[in-house]
Amino acid sequence: MTTAAPITVDTVLQARWIVPIEPNDVILDNHAIVINKGKIVAIEDAAQIKANYATENYIALKHHVLLPGLINAHTHAAMTLFRGLADDLPLMDWLNQHIWPAEQHWMNESFVRSGTQLAVVEMLRGGTTCFNDMYYYPDIVANVAQDSGIRAVVGLIIIEFPTPWAQSADEYIRRGIRVHDEVRNLELVTTAFAPHAPYTVSDSSLKKIQTLADELDIPLHMHVHETANEVEQSIKQHKIRPLERLSQLGLLTPRLIGVHMTQLLDSEIKVIASEGVHVVHCPESNLKLASGMCPVQTLIDANVNVALGTDGAASNNDLDMLGEIRCAALLAKGNSSDPMAVPAHQALSMATINAARSLGLDQQIGSLLPGKAADIIAVDLRHPSTQPVYDPMAQIVYSACREQVTDVWVNGKHIVANKELRGIDVSALLDDVAGLGVNINQYDERHEDDLPS
Amino acid sequence: MTTAAPITVDTVLQARWIVPIEPNDVILDNHAIVINKGKIVAIEDAAQIKANYATENYIALKHHVLLPGLINAHTHAAMTLFRGLADDLPLMDWLNQHIWPAEQHWMNESFVRSGTQLAVVEMLRGGTTCFNDMYYYPDIVANVAQDSGIRAVVGLIIIEFPTPWAQSADEYIRRGIRVHDEVRNLELVTTAFAPHAPYTVSDSSLKKIQTLADELDIPLHMHVHETANEVEQSIKQHKIRPLERLSQLGLLTPRLIGVHMTQLLDSEIKVIASEGVHVVHCPESNLKLASGMCPVQTLIDANVNVALGTDGAASNNDLDMLGEIRCAALLAKGNSSDPMAVPAHQALSMATINAARSLGLDQQIGSLLPGKAADIIAVDLRHPSTQPVYDPMAQIVYSACREQVTDVWVNGKHIVANKELRGIDVSALLDDVAGLGVNINQYDERHEDDLPS
Repeated sequence: MTTAAPITVDTVLQARWIVPIEPNDVILDNHAIVINKGKIVAIEDAAQIKANYATENYIALKHHVLLPGLINAHTHAAMTLFRGLADDLPLMDWLNQHIWPAEQHWMNESFVRSGTQLAVVEMLRGGTTCFNDMYYYPDIVANVAQDSGIRAVVGLIIIEFPTPWAQSADEYIRRGIRVHDEVRNLELVTTAFAPHAPYTVSDSSLKKIQTLADELDIPLHMHVHETANEVEQSIKQHKIRPLERLSQLGLLTPRLIGVHMTQLLDSEIKVIASEGVHVVHCPESNLKLASGMCPVQTLIDANVNVALGTDGAASNNDLDMLGEIRCAALLAKGNSSDPMAVPAHQALSMATINAARSLGLDQQIGSLLPGKAADIIAVDLRHPSTQPVYDPMAQIVYSACREQVTDVWVNGKHIVANKELRGIDVSALLDDVAGLGVNINQYDERHEDDLPS
Repeated sequence: MTTAAPITVDTVLQARWIVPIEPNDVILDNHAIVINKGKIVAIEDAAQIKANYATENYIALKHHVLLPGLINAHTHAAMTLFRGLADDLPLMDWLNQHIWPAEQHWMNESFVRSGTQLAVVEMLRGGTTCFNDMYYYPDIVANVAQDSGIRAVVGLIIIEFPTPWAQSADEYIRRGIRVHDEVRNLELVTTAFAPHAPYTVSDSSLKKIQTLADELDIPLHMHVHETANEVEQSIKQHKIRPLERLSQLGLLTPRLIGVHMTQLLDSEIKVIASEGVHVVHCPESNLKLASGMCPVQTLIDANVNVALGTDGAASNNDLDMLGEIRCAALLAKGNSSDPMAVPAHQALSMATINAARSLGLDQQIGSLLPGKAADIIAVDLRHPSTQPVYDPMAQIVYSACREQVTDVWVNGKHIVANKELRGIDVSALLDDVAGLGVNINQYDERHEDDLPS
């Protein structure tokens, strides 16, 4: 056998363990990942990689697991600025008395910029490399994401009431399409239509959005069956449940990313399975607002693709995907009375490849395979909470905390290095948002008594 | 008004916020805590404290919350060494096929020492200043706790099968009493009898233990109604449910710390309320093993004292009380379909004053009141995940992670300073337990196929 000259590449990452997610439930010992021009070139035994590749950037991570960057499949990034503004309240009080009035007063370009920056910092430091957003000013969200080096699917929001972003459904749609055109050259950004929910968007708007989504070939991201109340109201107003209404409007297709889905009949599970609708499970938000429990294991058994999201920080109250993974894995067991429900590798898949699939990005991200983008995170298991290590996947799901994420690469770029964010002045940002928080708090307290209950 | 000369004291801690837990639901802004000879002397406005006290150790924490040290009301500390050994399995398979065989083979003084040291490091770094333990070699647990500077209630375990610690119920009791005598002069240690569970301890042993507990005036710490299976087996064997059996044996008293309690009839809730039995809720363990859900809000409404525990790291898989507090607050809402169930201040009380009460230590610890021991922790909220701050209690419960605990004092001693443990060589300990883990893993894999299923 002749020895070929080593190939020069940008980066090689060697780690104690690699969890590639694809193939499923595999742990690679002492392997290395070769990265070149933003993409994964090879994953092989470290000795072999050393023989075949040369690089000026060889990083050896002795106590770490490398895995695909986590994908937050549902959030409202800018709402970090309302984190903890109004807790321990029912959903409709929380929305009507606090969140919507605060949004009417505060929400503008600068609010969305600061809030999204804060969210992006929190997400990157916690190992999230891509987020699926639903909020106003998606153009701002897109630019913050691109500038910060995180991948984003920005939601072109539609809701049938006026906000500073748009006055009518038509204007929301028009502005959304303009944003879609504006951001198409941003390397890290794609778009989805984001009609808020069946109860806040009309039949005619939903039909229009579906047509446009087909035309632009982008997903459709919507809250669906979040609470029992939503279902009841739909039956009162439309004589049918929201999912049936969406079905009649032609929205149940593989484009649909249905978020929450806590209220599901067996017949509805069959329909979303056969139509290829994706479900995003947001366990912490569902628990906190007592919205109901998504039947995750039943959905998985029915071959529905289930992804994970944090929801916004106003109802969670963090954007910590490791925490969300743990909660999903634990809650599924308790909820189905089956300790084997959603095992560790399944929970990790929900936050990686399943999420990528829901966003139509599974050819690019969601697992560590040659040809995919180098969106990778390193989790240091040398910590009192994650020793000894019998199964690194179990340690990540059941024991690790977000502060053990030491390094993050997006598209091959080393964004977080040894827990430090590169290129973002976190301290200045924290000062900025702390100041905003003081103003918002004073406003909320002044107006709390004036609002209709 | 004449000005008295300032009183010289050991330490003054000034912080942006103080959450004293007693009085309930109070947040003090820009106050300070005076500590002398291990005890809290005063908590007042920082300016006033500065005028009245002098110290060489004035610590100002600009972005932090001070609160009482967290109390882990149920754990098996040394089981950190089995963390992640066998996940995603039913309780009885987990116990019979993995945990109990591993214990028979591995458990000895040195195992308990290393495992408890690891647990103590994890707990102290995460803000836990006291733990209620149930494990073999309680003398070792006591000494590790005292040497490390953490407070502990060591469980004098009784179980009706032989282990390296004791061969018979009588020997367990005898050795337990000896440990009680040996540790009585350790400043940070008290004891409790710890009969494992109704299904593993006989009537005659339970009666004997109750008599001895009354004599020594110590609590009685036991798993009770952990699973539906436990209740069914008791009905088969004893014709009555375990709580009824304990009632007939005279065990339902304010001495009893009943752990788990996922299976409770309304009539049983009434009885434990009227008898003053304490309940320890372990939400993550109950979810992970799918044991059932403890009706926390119903218990609180019935005036039952509910504390929080992590359980052992083999079924959790961490000893992170902040994570447990969040899980308890979220799960209670989802489980009772009430977003107002277990609000933030209630969840914090469960991990502090309620836990202290269950252990009979509420005169010494569990809240920041003058006269109590200075068991205090500082949580830094200047972090992307906990900004802005509207309500520091909500930030701690719903957003903060254990790594934001920067400082820990136990009995006035500064044990963790700026995230560093004083007096413990963490690196050497991690090397030690990593080595142990390799051996245990090889043994578990070799023996997995030999065991009866």
